[in-house]
Amino acid sequence: MASSPPTPDDSAVYITLIGSGTIGLSFAAFHLQHLKSPEHLTIYDTRPDLSSYIETTLPKYLPAAQHGLISSIKLSTSEDTLADAVSNATIIQEQGPENAEFKCSIWAQIEKHAKPDALLWSSTSGIPASVQSRDMKDKSRLVVVHPYNPPHIMPLLEVVPTPQTGPDVIERTLNFWRTRGREPVVIHKECTGFVANRLAFALLRESIHLVNEGVVSVEELDKIVESSMGPRWTVAGPFKSYHAGGGAGGLESFFGNIGGTVQGCWDDIGTPSVGDGWEKKIFQQSQDAYGTIDTTQRDRITKSVLRAVKNGKSADKASD
Amino acid sequence: MASSPPTPDDSAVYITLIGSGTIGLSFAAFHLQHLKSPEHLTIYDTRPDLSSYIETTLPKYLPAAQHGLISSIKLSTSEDTLADAVSNATIIQEQGPENAEFKCSIWAQIEKHAKPDALLWSSTSGIPASVQSRDMKDKSRLVVVHPYNPPHIMPLLEVVPTPQTGPDVIERTLNFWRTRGREPVVIHKECTGFVANRLAFALLRESIHLVNEGVVSVEELDKIVESSMGPRWTVAGPFKSYHAGGGAGGLESFFGNIGGTVQGCWDDIGTPSVGDGWEKKIFQQSQDAYGTIDTTQRDRITKSVLRAVKNGKSADKASD
Repeated sequence: MASSPPTPDDSAVYITLIGSGTIGLSFAAFHLQHLKSPEHLTIYDTRPDLSSYIETTLPKYLPAAQHGLISSIKLSTSEDTLADAVSNATIIQEQGPENAEFKCSIWAQIEKHAKPDALLWSSTSGIPASVQSRDMKDKSRLVVVHPYNPPHIMPLLEVVPTPQTGPDVIERTLNFWRTRGREPVVIHKECTGFVANRLAFALLRESIHLVNEGVVSVEELDKIVESSMGPRWTVAGPFKSYHAGGGAGGLESFFGNIGGTVQGCWDDIGTPSVGDGWEKKIFQQSQDAYGTIDTTQRDRITKSVLRAVKNGKSADKASD
Repeated sequence: MASSPPTPDDSAVYITLIGSGTIGLSFAAFHLQHLKSPEHLTIYDTRPDLSSYIETTLPKYLPAAQHGLISSIKLSTSEDTLADAVSNATIIQEQGPENAEFKCSIWAQIEKHAKPDALLWSSTSGIPASVQSRDMKDKSRLVVVHPYNPPHIMPLLEVVPTPQTGPDVIERTLNFWRTRGREPVVIHKECTGFVANRLAFALLRESIHLVNEGVVSVEELDKIVESSMGPRWTVAGPFKSYHAGGGAGGLESFFGNIGGTVQGCWDDIGTPSVGDGWEKKIFQQSQDAYGTIDTTQRDRITKSVLRAVKNGKSADKASD
């Protein structure tokens, strides 16, 4: 039987979120469920209506029993209060505008006021820490921690250090998320879009190609993925799946058996670009099929799927 | 509340499977759980040890309570018996060698002996019905019904007609699978690799690229997919997910917001080919990470994931 992960000691954890868009709200919900006290959470955002905004939007991310915690969160709404907002934090997590100048500027300011051992995380989906740290004195402190939306539900965190990021920063970051049941994965080289989005967008590109060619509709394509790769890759990622598909000979046998078919698909792969003219048809089909989507149902089912995987894997470990 | 699917009347269904490899065995298991009697199932395969082979391999696909059904399946092992094997069938489902000559030849023979209204399905992953039907008198009868492995568990069936396939053939095929809780999807144009494999191989290609470049390992890449896209796409396919990601403006807003990031990933996408030299590293990493995979655990967890989705969607419908 596998050992349990160490239980986090949250009494000394103080988190300051920089930015309160959908990612910030989702992280706020996650942290509220783990921090010792809601007063250990600070949200910094210069929008003037921050207090009423948080009161009206954050409840959607939380079970009703926890709505009462929201009023105890510390809020910080002006540039003058940034120093106060970060000075006591052990973790400062940024999800401001996706703008390199903003990020360079805010990290330089944060560095002046943060504790020397505070973890500095950016949720950026595309601006590497090596760019964001330009004006910092100690560039070894910053690391990208890119979530998969919405982070209060999805387990993945892509941890993307620069070549200068300190090993202890990476280690403490991984430990934080692992002890909270999440799946942080280190990306060993900074690259455009990191890994999850690159993979998803590769499949999206071929999806756009096939719908644009009239092979299937938007809705049919979604049904195909939902009833095949989705559940398969929830349990075993692509390499593991095809390694299993090769039997005892693994991935090598898989390619020995059907490498020709794989190459045939690759030779025929579509390469649409943004602005190529497929947009009108595909946006319209999506709108007709889905209208405005209520993600509450999606998120609830996603949680039950993740629970099924977790229970299934625990049962396996218990019987090992 | 949505109406239930019509209950299939299986008393008149007789199925003959041509070929008993892993796909044939898996379909045999599926059909055994739905046919009125195991005697309604015939397996045709010219391997001389068919009887002992079926007795030893098929139980792995079935719950213990159903192992007793296996001995009642009708077996047919010589070319002389093909006529007998198909003459009573209402469905003839082929998963023989992936070889166009074999398929052209067997369908021409089957057509001579099959009932005029029997459904003729090929499980091929790559040889279109328009090729397979070359020597048939009535080419409107054949349709590809391509499963996602293993078909006794995975819901998807890609139904790929030719321009000549009769509408009633398509309709009866869809009806068969829908009434048995499966997700048949019509592919409107025959194309290399159909849809599911094209999509999966597009993502696999970028996966190979990223591991080959040292961005992540095989195992890290799998963890990324298992903790992000896998569960997401189980609940909502790529278009539906990104349509939701765009909020009220849908997919159009999504591309308005981050189309530049998407294009950045597309511009940087990897294009490895089979035989390019990535194989040694990636086969070895897969072997080191996974060895020989026991798919029993994977399949059990997959079933619980599919159940979680089904229950979640039923609950939504009940509360509509």
